[in-house]
Amino acid sequence: MRDILDAVAAGELPAAVAEAELRGYASTGAGRFDAARTDRSGIPEAILVDGKTPEEAATMTAAAVETTDSALLTRVTPDHAEACRARIEGRFPGAELAHDERARTIVVHADGYEPPELSATATVVTAGTSDAPPAGEAAVVLEELGATVDRIDDVGVAGIARLFDRLEEIREADVLVVAAGREGALPTVLAGLVDVPLIGLPVSTGYGYGGSGEAALAGMLQSCAPILVVNIDAGFAAGAQAGLIARSISTARRA
Amino acid sequence: MRDILDAVAAGELPAAVAEAELRGYASTGAGRFDAARTDRSGIPEAILVDGKTPEEAATMTAAAVETTDSALLTRVTPDHAEACRARIEGRFPGAELAHDERARTIVVHADGYEPPELSATATVVTAGTSDAPPAGEAAVVLEELGATVDRIDDVGVAGIARLFDRLEEIREADVLVVAAGREGALPTVLAGLVDVPLIGLPVSTGYGYGGSGEAALAGMLQSCAPILVVNIDAGFAAGAQAGLIARSISTARRA
Amino acid sequence: MRDILDAVAAGELPAAVAEAELRGYASTGAGRFDAARTDRSGIPEAILVDGKTPEEAATMTAAAVETTDSALLTRVTPDHAEACRARIEGRFPGAELAHDERARTIVVHADGYEPPELSATATVVTAGTSDAPPAGEAAVVLEELGATVDRIDDVGVAGIARLFDRLEEIREADVLVVAAGREGALPTVLAGLVDVPLIGLPVSTGYGYGGSGEAALAGMLQSCAPILVVNIDAGFAAGAQAGLIARSISTARRA
Amino acid sequence: MRDILDAVAAGELPAAVAEAELRGYASTGAGRFDAARTDRSGIPEAILVDGKTPEEAATMTAAAVETTDSALLTRVTPDHAEACRARIEGRFPGAELAHDERARTIVVHADGYEPPELSATATVVTAGTSDAPPAGEAAVVLEELGATVDRIDDVGVAGIARLFDRLEEIREADVLVVAAGREGALPTVLAGLVDVPLIGLPVSTGYGYGGSGEAALAGMLQSCAPILVVNIDAGFAAGAQAGLIARSISTARRA
Amino acid sequence: MRDILDAVAAGELPAAVAEAELRGYASTGAGRFDAARTDRSGIPEAILVDGKTPEEAATMTAAAVETTDSALLTRVTPDHAEACRARIEGRFPGAELAHDERARTIVVHADGYEPPELSATATVVTAGTSDAPPAGEAAVVLEELGATVDRIDDVGVAGIARLFDRLEEIREADVLVVAAGREGALPTVLAGLVDVPLIGLPVSTGYGYGGSGEAALAGMLQSCAPILVVNIDAGFAAGAQAGLIARSISTARRA
Amino acid sequence: MRDILDAVAAGELPAAVAEAELRGYASTGAGRFDAARTDRSGIPEAILVDGKTPEEAATMTAAAVETTDSALLTRVTPDHAEACRARIEGRFPGAELAHDERARTIVVHADGYEPPELSATATVVTAGTSDAPPAGEAAVVLEELGATVDRIDDVGVAGIARLFDRLEEIREADVLVVAAGREGALPTVLAGLVDVPLIGLPVSTGYGYGGSGEAALAGMLQSCAPILVVNIDAGFAAGAQAGLIARSISTARRA
Amino acid sequence: MRDILDAVAAGELPAAVAEAELRGYASTGAGRFDAARTDRSGIPEAILVDGKTPEEAATMTAAAVETTDSALLTRVTPDHAEACRARIEGRFPGAELAHDERARTIVVHADGYEPPELSATATVVTAGTSDAPPAGEAAVVLEELGATVDRIDDVGVAGIARLFDRLEEIREADVLVVAAGREGALPTVLAGLVDVPLIGLPVSTGYGYGGSGEAALAGMLQSCAPILVVNIDAGFAAGAQAGLIARSISTARRA
Amino acid sequence: MRDILDAVAAGELPAAVAEAELRGYASTGAGRFDAARTDRSGIPEAILVDGKTPEEAATMTAAAVETTDSALLTRVTPDHAEACRARIEGRFPGAELAHDERARTIVVHADGYEPPELSATATVVTAGTSDAPPAGEAAVVLEELGATVDRIDDVGVAGIARLFDRLEEIREADVLVVAAGREGALPTVLAGLVDVPLIGLPVSTGYGYGGSGEAALAGMLQSCAPILVVNIDAGFAAGAQAGLIARSISTARRA
Repeated sequence: MRDILDAVAAGELPAAVAEAELRGYASTGAGRFDAARTDRSGIPEAILVDGKTPEEAATMTAAAVETTDSALLTRVTPDHAEACRARIEGRFPGAELAHDERARTIVVHADGYEPPELSATATVVTAGTSDAPPAGEAAVVLEELGATVDRIDDVGVAGIARLFDRLEEIREADVLVVAAGREGALPTVLAGLVDVPLIGLPVSTGYGYGGSGEAALAGMLQSCAPILVVNIDAGFAAGAQAGLIARSISTARRA
Repeated sequence: MRDILDAVAAGELPAAVAEAELRGYASTGAGRFDAARTDRSGIPEAILVDGKTPEEAATMTAAAVETTDSALLTRVTPDHAEACRARIEGRFPGAELAHDERARTIVVHADGYEPPELSATATVVTAGTSDAPPAGEAAVVLEELGATVDRIDDVGVAGIARLFDRLEEIREADVLVVAAGREGALPTVLAGLVDVPLIGLPVSTGYGYGGSGEAALAGMLQSCAPILVVNIDAGFAAGAQAGLIARSISTARRA
Repeated sequence: MRDILDAVAAGELPAAVAEAELRGYASTGAGRFDAARTDRSGIPEAILVDGKTPEEAATMTAAAVETTDSALLTRVTPDHAEACRARIEGRFPGAELAHDERARTIVVHADGYEPPELSATATVVTAGTSDAPPAGEAAVVLEELGATVDRIDDVGVAGIARLFDRLEEIREADVLVVAAGREGALPTVLAGLVDVPLIGLPVSTGYGYGGSGEAALAGMLQSCAPILVVNIDAGFAAGAQAGLIARSISTARRA
Repeated sequence: MRDILDAVAAGELPAAVAEAELRGYASTGAGRFDAARTDRSGIPEAILVDGKTPEEAATMTAAAVETTDSALLTRVTPDHAEACRARIEGRFPGAELAHDERARTIVVHADGYEPPELSATATVVTAGTSDAPPAGEAAVVLEELGATVDRIDDVGVAGIARLFDRLEEIREADVLVVAAGREGALPTVLAGLVDVPLIGLPVSTGYGYGGSGEAALAGMLQSCAPILVVNIDAGFAAGAQAGLIARSISTARRA
Repeated sequence: MRDILDAVAAGELPAAVAEAELRGYASTGAGRFDAARTDRSGIPEAILVDGKTPEEAATMTAAAVETTDSALLTRVTPDHAEACRARIEGRFPGAELAHDERARTIVVHADGYEPPELSATATVVTAGTSDAPPAGEAAVVLEELGATVDRIDDVGVAGIARLFDRLEEIREADVLVVAAGREGALPTVLAGLVDVPLIGLPVSTGYGYGGSGEAALAGMLQSCAPILVVNIDAGFAAGAQAGLIARSISTARRA
Repeated sequence: MRDILDAVAAGELPAAVAEAELRGYASTGAGRFDAARTDRSGIPEAILVDGKTPEEAATMTAAAVETTDSALLTRVTPDHAEACRARIEGRFPGAELAHDERARTIVVHADGYEPPELSATATVVTAGTSDAPPAGEAAVVLEELGATVDRIDDVGVAGIARLFDRLEEIREADVLVVAAGREGALPTVLAGLVDVPLIGLPVSTGYGYGGSGEAALAGMLQSCAPILVVNIDAGFAAGAQAGLIARSISTARRA
Repeated sequence: MRDILDAVAAGELPAAVAEAELRGYASTGAGRFDAARTDRSGIPEAILVDGKTPEEAATMTAAAVETTDSALLTRVTPDHAEACRARIEGRFPGAELAHDERARTIVVHADGYEPPELSATATVVTAGTSDAPPAGEAAVVLEELGATVDRIDDVGVAGIARLFDRLEEIREADVLVVAAGREGALPTVLAGLVDVPLIGLPVSTGYGYGGSGEAALAGMLQSCAPILVVNIDAGFAAGAQAGLIARSISTARRA
Repeated sequence: MRDILDAVAAGELPAAVAEAELRGYASTGAGRFDAARTDRSGIPEAILVDGKTPEEAATMTAAAVETTDSALLTRVTPDHAEACRARIEGRFPGAELAHDERARTIVVHADGYEPPELSATATVVTAGTSDAPPAGEAAVVLEELGATVDRIDDVGVAGIARLFDRLEEIREADVLVVAAGREGALPTVLAGLVDVPLIGLPVSTGYGYGGSGEAALAGMLQSCAPILVVNIDAGFAAGAQAGLIARSISTARRA
């Protein structure tokens, strides 16, 4: 902490930026954890497990809990989950660890951690069952950020009655995350029917030309009804930004 | 004609193939016109004007009329149209030339030519006004093949009520050609609502990633409701195959 | 069922769409099965097994049989087949389950199920032996839709005599599905020789530039003889739309 | 209007959807204008001028003003602007037409039209001067939707002091639209420094590999700080969705 | 010339390579002309006009004639042709300049130049009329290298009888250059019917996916009948290598 | 055989084509083997093992030996080799089977089979050791076609002295196959130094942008010294066409 | 200037960064000119003219001269050059403006400006004449940074003797910029022959697959001799970084 | 060695090139090792293990140590490491083998080998922990070339304070290698803050569009601050060229 204060004193670090920094980075053998991320940007640093060993993931998780009383991991495999659980149980008595296998996420709350609560609803919509993993990742992030999360599943446009059936429910959202693979048409159709911010989340389903989510991504970027987009399978980005929108609305409501 | 007969006699050309050939190719300075194409494959040889001079287009048109009493040109510019009109008027008294500027097509019927008539309806649907040129090309081909052609325009999914408004009319078709650019979602939505053959026609609108019709093509190929597809802006292919479907139904109806 | 009726009464669901819906969706833990798909669009909802566990596939299969007396699965592995067989045997006495290993499909017919029968022939043509899996998928769908299915194999253009050898047989079809990988030239050559609707089915063979079916797809979309196309390996889409064409012809024949 | 009411009565159109429809579509020779779009989705139907003749653009503009008392055109050329001005002056006395040459937009307000006013600020940030056209398009849409619009220009990361210089000002925004071409790094850097919703707007600058905005788009989708993205040069989409966010916050503030 | 001899003496230049070099490079303001290319590699250095001004092209042409008594230019526009003609007439009395507008080539022979003559036939085949420009470029190169050149035009596979009609003639070739655009299937079909070396020349026709010759290139590279390929529109490369093959056969015949 | 003769009699099959066909196709459960391919096109039908089970490969091999006294398999794994060896030993006493593990090929010669012998040399050159597999495949095909095959390895351009060291040897070839991965510059450099036909064989080495052989393929197609190209790793195509060139030269030499 | 000092005082701007900033940005109607760029990064801010009007370019040029006594413009057209010359002559008496038409650059030195001088040589090598524009851009930047610049032209690998002819001269460089289009093999060959830093500069020549410089870029990135690369046609980047290398060496030499 | 001397005598090999060659190539069953590479180009021939068996890698390693007293292997797996260690221990008593698992490299120094030492510092910077493998590869090469290597890790732009925190340290470098995956913005930001040569090293992290390092590569090539680039994950190339830069500076310093 001293180094950062010195840097501010010396004018080497903008005070506006350094302020948030004071809770510090947690340096571990597996990398530095940016504990100040939430204060600075409203979004916690998620630990993306891809390419990390279970041990490295557990080390980063411990660093996160140490500095922020909570941790959020994405793209988790059962092996990573086991290593994290062992580390958390050993070191943070009373901590709660929730592993969502479908969403491939882990959330850890230290004993006594009080999660944020927002007065705003984010609704996560899926076109089909194979959209569940990234949609689940978005939902977990939204819950962690304190939004009320509603789930509407299997309303893809191939059977459009399924969509109308639940349109009223969808319209109650303050912000929408709409996950779809294959041709990814659902966000486009929905954006013509609702008047709240809508984030399209393309999913890596499908095969052949435009497979692996490319047709869905391209279709959402080209949508004739203007929508926001994140990368293929980027449930974390969709959830994090939807969370910022929900937070802004919640703040305004409470003012 | 003699050469072909000789080739058949000598066993060099399959009789089954050569049969249709007997009306012959029309060799011109601008290329050979395949006059037997309609007999062999049910689809006339269209003269694709791209990359041809007006003079070459006019020469090919004359060869087509000479051998088949009709001609069909696609991707026509005003200059090509003028050259063709001059040539046709000079050489084929009583012939009728129809130039559709939006569809960029020319159709010529020699005096006394009797176009085919089918007992089947092909409906050409567009999502928006910029889909008109390839949709028009498809419609012109369908008319030339004798189908009853219905047009349903501007029913894109961004305002889905537009689609429901005309759904009954669309359902009366025997075969559908559905043109859409941008994200190209209309054929997918429609394919979940009708039970007749449906051909998606992606249109080269849009800009940025997936622009020039690529998102529409990819989306139609990935459609979660199974559909048939042709290349971007390939109105001729869509119309020709829709015409074959209409012809098969018409033949069955009349049997 | 009540909800849907209420929605219609309230004007929230178009009557024309809801009609088919009355047999309902089957909601399962593994997703909702769209039982009304066949009534609405003439094509059954196939259960695409990619990305589903054997248990999930079995659950969806049971839901399909429950609501429609039949089920169709694509891209099946032996593990999925085993799980489905166990579930079906346990729950639907007398049901028949047919697993085609080459085509990677499963078809289930409940006891007493009467499949449709059409008065129309769909012929599935392959260029080589590696085109068999998607071609087989198309054939299974066509049979399920009631078409008379003919198979013509190994007539690729590298030895064009093979094609002429069976041309007469091919010409008897009411509609053609033509599967080819590598350069995918067979549909183009064939389309110049037949006068019935022709669907090109590109296959993911080949390596290097244009491998994985991309050259075949591009070649079919660019074909100088106009043809219809589906995505790479999309046997289901080819078979389903060919089935709609066959059904239209059959209906016209019987009228 | 009668048809729509009939459709609702007959249960063919969801009442929830049709409600907005009652102000109707304006059918013109140049296409149908979706006058109900704003009511339904909170975003007006923008007239994308690409591929339309000046006459067609003017016709659509008149239809928009007729039905909604305002019009918004994007990608306008001087020729289009002139045709629109002539048409508006002739037909709508007292109407105001604003043509922004840099943003390539036209906004028309009929005499007496009262634009919406929101209690929320949207800030449009650019990395360099060549980002001005799409950024301007986003700003015009935001103004039309009633947001207070702030502009921060030329703060690209190659001279990062430029960014810190104006960070406090940027942090006052309720929502950010950040336009950048070339490598498009600005939104990523900024997203680590602010805690409001942030929309990256990639711009079609640059040449060679990743030129035409592709590197910027890819970089924003891959951003290690989660952000929202629209297509390359899609200023309208960025502005429209930022406007919905601003509107939600404004509504919450006023409640 | 002195420098090169010195370099050889000093061991800096391989004697085997330098031998051919002795006739020297012609250095001009517009670049160096590699006069020794023919001796070294059997193929003259063609002057690719793309990106050169008419004056630069004329300068290079003069350098070529100066050092090799001949010149070959590709991708020539009328402006380049005019500048070259003026330069040649002024400086090389008795020289002959042949400008092929379709093939976009210029060939210059100085007074007294004796072109090579080979005892071998190269046949250039095209699928359609739009394949003429690169096919013509190949033919001009082949003629310049001394081969007997035969042309077979308009035998594309959409009307396969056209191909059989001329198969005997094609089979008389010692080497084949086969030009095709769109799906580019002709070389594949032909390679299954002939037993001489065959070079596929993809042509930049077609539009949409795989347009600009990409489908043709991919198809030829994936051809199930093994063939040789050059780049899209690379008539010079096809002609030059076919010329080397013809030369080898001719040399063997004369031995 | 009867069917084919009937087809010829009936004029359904060109005599010129059918002639070669008389030795017939060998139909097996694993596909039809085109036994007449060598007679018709000078190149045997290679059995591409990719995507075939060991059993299917063995069945095709037996059919090849049955009809042509020899067989050639590419992309062979040890499992395929074992199955083939077992089948051949059981059914064709005295047959010789050669399995080249590096080249991944199998060659079978029945007892008494006399391979062709050509009076021409084909030289296969590699840039580095990882180019060995496709280069080996080309060499095996060339040997099978009867060419004298010379191998020059590890002469890549990063150490250009390696190339000059062996240039004289390379220049003795009648035709060259030059395999190179990574940037694939060797064929370009070599083509400026030799005057015989040269076939570039791009190899799927390298990683990152242009990896998997794409940079090599692109570089060879763009080569400023004109060369012939085959697809990435397409050793069979390179060897087969080089064999046709060698055969033409050999025939001319012996005339 | 006051704002920046305030920001430093307030700790909002790192002193280390702000130091260079003190000479300030020049804000113009056409954008802000980063006058401190050279002090901060050793490389002047070049004014990329693409997408700017002549007036805007002239305004930026004046701002550059105002603040740094010099200006460097790239991708200049004659119209831009004229506007700049007029502006400079009017406002900066005694200033020198050098317009290099081939390199498409403008350099302005105010009266009394003393350019840097380095004790290091940078050599710019080209494969052919069409590589001149980006090579020239690199050379102009290097001269502006004070390096001794040597030019070696037309030594492409198709005639490799040309390269050996000048190898000694090339080896005298402290750093090399090697420009090549088409297959771009020259930097790879050269990197195996020299032991100084080498920057490959791919050039947008060539057509067909890998054209527009893509093959050259891919080949340089894949080079089996390790080299540094910049984007296609990015002469400025190559020259600027080569200049930094030359400066480091020069500084070390003078120490 | 005799052959090479003869070649020089005969003028077949440039003396300037051959000089370095005298220490010879080490021919092994697994390929030829270019022992003269370091003398000729300043960079040792690294043994890229991809696609080699452990035995082949060990053989090449032995050849390298035999001829140059050292060896450098990249992309090593544990199996390769084990085989190399066994071979080295058996054959080169006293040799030291260092295996860096993270960097996936092996370095071998024979007993008595004296590595080079440079008076220059190369700093390797990473944006995040997943950039460690290629960054480590670069560092190993730099150490082997004798540079003083400094490591700065985890200073990615999402938390830009991390970067400023260590900016002074970074500025002490003579040359920078900056590794970054995902959007790859770090080199761009850094290049605006330092005045030494900077090499961007894109890393194959990320998923979806632009994943596998493509966004990072594209962003670095498009960087608005000019930088040098190597291919994705090409740590060896980055380290080798940075080493050449360091060596040039070191040489100048010592002069």
